[in-house]
Amino acid sequence: MKREKVSSAVIRRLPRYYRHLTDLTLAGVVRISSNTLGKAMNLTASQIRQDLSCFGEFGQQGYGYNVESLRNAVSEILGMDQKHTAIILGVGNLGRALMENFHFSHSGFVLTAAFDVNPSLVGKSLAGVPVYSVEHLNSYLQSTPTSVGVLTVPRTAAAPMADRLVAGGVRGIWNFTNAELNVHKSGVVVENVHFADSLLALSYMISEAP
Amino acid sequence: MKREKVSSAVIRRLPRYYRHLTDLTLAGVVRISSNTLGKAMNLTASQIRQDLSCFGEFGQQGYGYNVESLRNAVSEILGMDQKHTAIILGVGNLGRALMENFHFSHSGFVLTAAFDVNPSLVGKSLAGVPVYSVEHLNSYLQSTPTSVGVLTVPRTAAAPMADRLVAGGVRGIWNFTNAELNVHKSGVVVENVHFADSLLALSYMISEAP
Repeated sequence: MKREKVSSAVIRRLPRYYRHLTDLTLAGVVRISSNTLGKAMNLTASQIRQDLSCFGEFGQQGYGYNVESLRNAVSEILGMDQKHTAIILGVGNLGRALMENFHFSHSGFVLTAAFDVNPSLVGKSLAGVPVYSVEHLNSYLQSTPTSVGVLTVPRTAAAPMADRLVAGGVRGIWNFTNAELNVHKSGVVVENVHFADSLLALSYMISEAP
Repeated sequence: MKREKVSSAVIRRLPRYYRHLTDLTLAGVVRISSNTLGKAMNLTASQIRQDLSCFGEFGQQGYGYNVESLRNAVSEILGMDQKHTAIILGVGNLGRALMENFHFSHSGFVLTAAFDVNPSLVGKSLAGVPVYSVEHLNSYLQSTPTSVGVLTVPRTAAAPMADRLVAGGVRGIWNFTNAELNVHKSGVVVENVHFADSLLALSYMISEAP
């Protein structure tokens, strides 16, 4: 269906819906009211109804939501069925942590390759994913259309690597470098992961806690 | 000053204010209107005025905000002046990435120690931070009051390690394990970092982008 513009707050909540619905599915819960789902997610029932109404009609008055079908719907809204692919740039500690411990497939992604400048890594395979030389990035992207580039290079390398990803046709950059990226190609989205934002929120909460 | 209960959405935005104000300070900007700050942060001017009004009176009609003093105020609101300390549990790829590349001090924290079970790491020092055996965690916490435990252990070890942190008196857990932690001690806050939420938001955005 054609959607109205969805607010970024709603977009941020969608993965949380998916996560909670997945937990409910695993716990064998078949249906849930917006009230109960709201309590688990720290949202009001009306907020939940309003969020989901951006995407269509879900749930029935007096019944609530069927957990599995709502989970499937949210999964589809999130684009998890679109066979997105990802490559990692930078096989340092963080790149390696993502390769070895993060389940890209649980988010609907296939991690197809990693790139680094370190000759002792190039040619190896980590967690089943080949590590290539950064020299081959452009030709790789030319021959292998790629949805997302994961940036775990040092901060100073972030901008030139982002430029190469964009020139190579990626549609999104998952940016762990903490560098602000100026991407001027329309349709290319940057998602920044700012660890410090999370730690500062925690700092606020422990400073406030009684 | 005594504050009203601040919504979690506002808490989430505070670190972003701090980040933008820091960038503005570095760029030499002395004052800024709520309009201009709003544009940079993708918020409306009235949203900004409303957010900041939770914490006191900032800015002047017709002048806007003094960047440096607002930054200092936000820093204080975030508790960055409270000399918070942190320890890392789990010196795997992710723990190591945080120790070597994340600037705890930029968030007002001192990283004092790390703990692991791996005998080849225990006794070493990484980025100037000593790695101790997990066996010594309890006695360490007893002798060294610690604000936050950073959980980068494998998911299966998350719950018992969280229990030990809480028993040891930490006030916050920065949880990278993707395990849901049930912390029942009042005053102890858990901040979860869910990489998948971020990747799924990106998935949504690239699936929606024209």
